[in-house]
Amino acid sequence: MPRTCETKIRVIYGDTDQMNVVYYANYLRFFEAGRNEFIRECGGTYKEIEKSGFMLPVVEVSVLYKAAARYDDVVVVKTSLGEVRRVSLTFTYEVVRESDGAVLTTGFTRHGCLNASGKPARLPEAVVKMLTLDVPALS
Amino acid sequence: MPRTCETKIRVIYGDTDQMNVVYYANYLRFFEAGRNEFIRECGGTYKEIEKSGFMLPVVEVSVLYKAAARYDDVVVVKTSLGEVRRVSLTFTYEVVRESDGAVLTTGFTRHGCLNASGKPARLPEAVVKMLTLDVPALS
Amino acid sequence: MPRTCETKIRVIYGDTDQMNVVYYANYLRFFEAGRNEFIRECGGTYKEIEKSGFMLPVVEVSVLYKAAARYDDVVVVKTSLGEVRRVSLTFTYEVVRESDGAVLTTGFTRHGCLNASGKPARLPEAVVKMLTLDVPALS
Amino acid sequence: MPRTCETKIRVIYGDTDQMNVVYYANYLRFFEAGRNEFIRECGGTYKEIEKSGFMLPVVEVSVLYKAAARYDDVVVVKTSLGEVRRVSLTFTYEVVRESDGAVLTTGFTRHGCLNASGKPARLPEAVVKMLTLDVPALS
Repeated sequence: MPRTCETKIRVIYGDTDQMNVVYYANYLRFFEAGRNEFIRECGGTYKEIEKSGFMLPVVEVSVLYKAAARYDDVVVVKTSLGEVRRVSLTFTYEVVRESDGAVLTTGFTRHGCLNASGKPARLPEAVVKMLTLDVPALS
Repeated sequence: MPRTCETKIRVIYGDTDQMNVVYYANYLRFFEAGRNEFIRECGGTYKEIEKSGFMLPVVEVSVLYKAAARYDDVVVVKTSLGEVRRVSLTFTYEVVRESDGAVLTTGFTRHGCLNASGKPARLPEAVVKMLTLDVPALS
Repeated sequence: MPRTCETKIRVIYGDTDQMNVVYYANYLRFFEAGRNEFIRECGGTYKEIEKSGFMLPVVEVSVLYKAAARYDDVVVVKTSLGEVRRVSLTFTYEVVRESDGAVLTTGFTRHGCLNASGKPARLPEAVVKMLTLDVPALS
Repeated sequence: MPRTCETKIRVIYGDTDQMNVVYYANYLRFFEAGRNEFIRECGGTYKEIEKSGFMLPVVEVSVLYKAAARYDDVVVVKTSLGEVRRVSLTFTYEVVRESDGAVLTTGFTRHGCLNASGKPARLPEAVVKMLTLDVPALS
């Protein structure tokens, strides 16, 4: 069963703007928190990936804004792994409001892979293995 | 001639992250600064649009990250108006580094239109007219 | 026994800067998360205080930076109520790294009180009562 | 004549919060932009200071909030050098609204000095000299 990681974040004043909703750029912070947690649930951390000599910088972002999160809402970032290629991988996100389950945003981030000298590189096999290990189905 | 507005921004420490580059969410701040300025060059302000009873919330964002802006770089946000429809409009962006002209990111934001009671509405004609008035060609 | 509220926050890439540490402004976000949680533990929310017609804008901030939080650290914001006066109140903060207990920053925020028309006002008794109710000592 | 550097910043939506004013943490971003510019006007850049092997991390911040900046305001950050000691220096700031000159915030940041290995160090003489060179009085 493909993995989905749920990360809860409570919206602070600093996340909002004068339209009384979360400023659009801040969903990219929520996405980041979500994928950090996703990697952790897979048994690693992004920090360790960097220590092993690779970086996964964001090369593309896409977001659809459907409804607004407001101050003091708890939002749930549901993160999954999307397409994994030789030199890039994609995380997909759905952010919902915890109280009523309303879908607030959906989106994805595509990541390239750089080695320690900053050159494009193939995704390390160990990273791909860690991220793609399916959650064991309950018997 | 379609209008392109250029907005210069100097990158501060607070824009960067520990990869020594501008954090990916901050380009959405740059985009916002760019479109604010675009509207101003058209002879209005987004503030006035809101005062007239309409909001243009972002409903979609797309960004391609091609190269990295670094601390103390001056970046130039080149903003243009994209597609204008009955109930939405699009701004397109190209962010380049001033010193060498390198293209850092390209992207677009699509905006819906809400009236004062927060209901979807047609774009006010006055707004469309203001934004689409072409720059007079030099004779 | 005076109340101290502990709020845990995991540092994301977006919190850091190119010095590889949390950018100094972001501690004010951590402080805000801490006092939101403090009020919640007292049985209310800041949102409700605003709904009742009062705002508590920050009028003064002071921070001492002692050590650096880094990416992926979990920090604990320890929030307490400081001095309560007729027209202002103070929250105090200590941010420590969870893994080793190192004190990262200490500081305070002082808040004025505005009524619904934005005029300075005395702190509502109900708010003061809620915030100052001591935690019952264990017998 | 002691130097004061003026840096203009236009407030974007992303700087505001749902109280319709600039979020309190963002003044620390304005302060940073101000001191970057101050150093530049002295003939150097903070980037060069770092390249020369020294960092000037913030060790203390103090801010008084007197009036609120709002969306689309142009604010002027007036930065001056405060006390210079062997191992620390202070910048002072006054942020005013350009349109009416209203003082919005005042504050200071105190900076320590670290060498390339991250150890506390005396401020390099060259840095002190650059920052303290008075503006020539007009004859």
